[in-house]
Amino acid sequence: MNPFESSPTDPLRAIVLLSGGLDSSTCLALAQARGHACSCLTIEYGQRHQAELHAARVVAETLGATDHRFVRVDLGSFGGSALTSDIPVPKDEVSKGIPVTYVPARNTVFLSLALALAEVQQAQEIWIGVNAVDYSGYPDCRPEFIHAFEKMATLATKVGVEEGRAPRIVTPLMHLSKAEIIQQGMAAGLDYSITLTCYDPDAEGRACGHCEACTLRRQGFAEAGVADPTQYR
Amino acid sequence: MNPFESSPTDPLRAIVLLSGGLDSSTCLALAQARGHACSCLTIEYGQRHQAELHAARVVAETLGATDHRFVRVDLGSFGGSALTSDIPVPKDEVSKGIPVTYVPARNTVFLSLALALAEVQQAQEIWIGVNAVDYSGYPDCRPEFIHAFEKMATLATKVGVEEGRAPRIVTPLMHLSKAEIIQQGMAAGLDYSITLTCYDPDAEGRACGHCEACTLRRQGFAEAGVADPTQYR
Repeated sequence: MNPFESSPTDPLRAIVLLSGGLDSSTCLALAQARGHACSCLTIEYGQRHQAELHAARVVAETLGATDHRFVRVDLGSFGGSALTSDIPVPKDEVSKGIPVTYVPARNTVFLSLALALAEVQQAQEIWIGVNAVDYSGYPDCRPEFIHAFEKMATLATKVGVEEGRAPRIVTPLMHLSKAEIIQQGMAAGLDYSITLTCYDPDAEGRACGHCEACTLRRQGFAEAGVADPTQYR
Repeated sequence: MNPFESSPTDPLRAIVLLSGGLDSSTCLALAQARGHACSCLTIEYGQRHQAELHAARVVAETLGATDHRFVRVDLGSFGGSALTSDIPVPKDEVSKGIPVTYVPARNTVFLSLALALAEVQQAQEIWIGVNAVDYSGYPDCRPEFIHAFEKMATLATKVGVEEGRAPRIVTPLMHLSKAEIIQQGMAAGLDYSITLTCYDPDAEGRACGHCEACTLRRQGFAEAGVADPTQYR
């Protein structure tokens, strides 16, 4: 059988990059709703809190992923971002240009690790919750980056050389507003109270409500016209 | 000053991917011989032995690198290669096609991490000792892969977006035979006795002399017409 085709008895295999946040959890919910066999990949990259990893575990289990891998990569030792170093996280503002929370080459590193796992598990797709609307300041959230990565992956891998194609990078949230993301996730049955988006949660995993991620998330629920189930401290 | 130009008082900054093996150590020796300020990056990716990491440390110190970072990435948890799992390492043969020692997406992961460090350290170049001659079976050792990665990196990074270019990927060994690599390294003053290439060294870091890497290395010294300084067990 062509490894790039699926059937009702042999679902398509997808690697889903899962942080436990709103966007990546929605990605997983959408991939599961398509009937894919989802193998989640959570990357520990020197974040300053573990609450996000706990959320990822709960989300993968709740949504019925077939596999969940955690890989630690200490990008924090490189410095250069408010998410991995001592630069303060900005409050109550949505930044212009490239934000200080930008992690150098983050999605390149994440997709590379997903590509390695996809090759080992013979997955046909890699799902990533990048979004060019709310995160327009991040260079590695743009469609042109994703297309260049996909092309590179075709040349980088055994499956690319032998079959002429590499795992497809699927970005279902690319052109959606936060409100639209929430609407699609809810339609797929996702309970957002188990997800965690905040850059600065407390020890119990409750959101601060004021960082850039919380601000965008709160706006999203308001614009979607649904009650915000987020647990704020 | 243009961050992509160097001067005698402000040498060009290069990230050098360094395993401590023959190829990457030669890369560092060549970059140092050019007068670059070299920041080495050694990636611990679930290899079965630590001797290689020790060799990397000795090589970076001996050659005078300005910085040396170690990043642990547990690709071993993915499986899929003789270098990171329990597949036996083949002895006394140079394989045809894609070898079992191929690590899925390895150079993609390595270059992604180097790209992250290059962005933080504002390095203009990334040096990697890939070679399309001896390792023709590895898809991620080919020039077309390197070019695709470079293009992707321009779209992935802050420096790519703001300056219109990303760190250049430098591959000085791409089209050299093992003998030519050794000759260039020796001309740059590299003492190969401190490097370690073997896939299966003993606890003291002595090479087995029989794995594919040892076989190619031994042939290289023989063809270069120089005494092999490798410490075999």
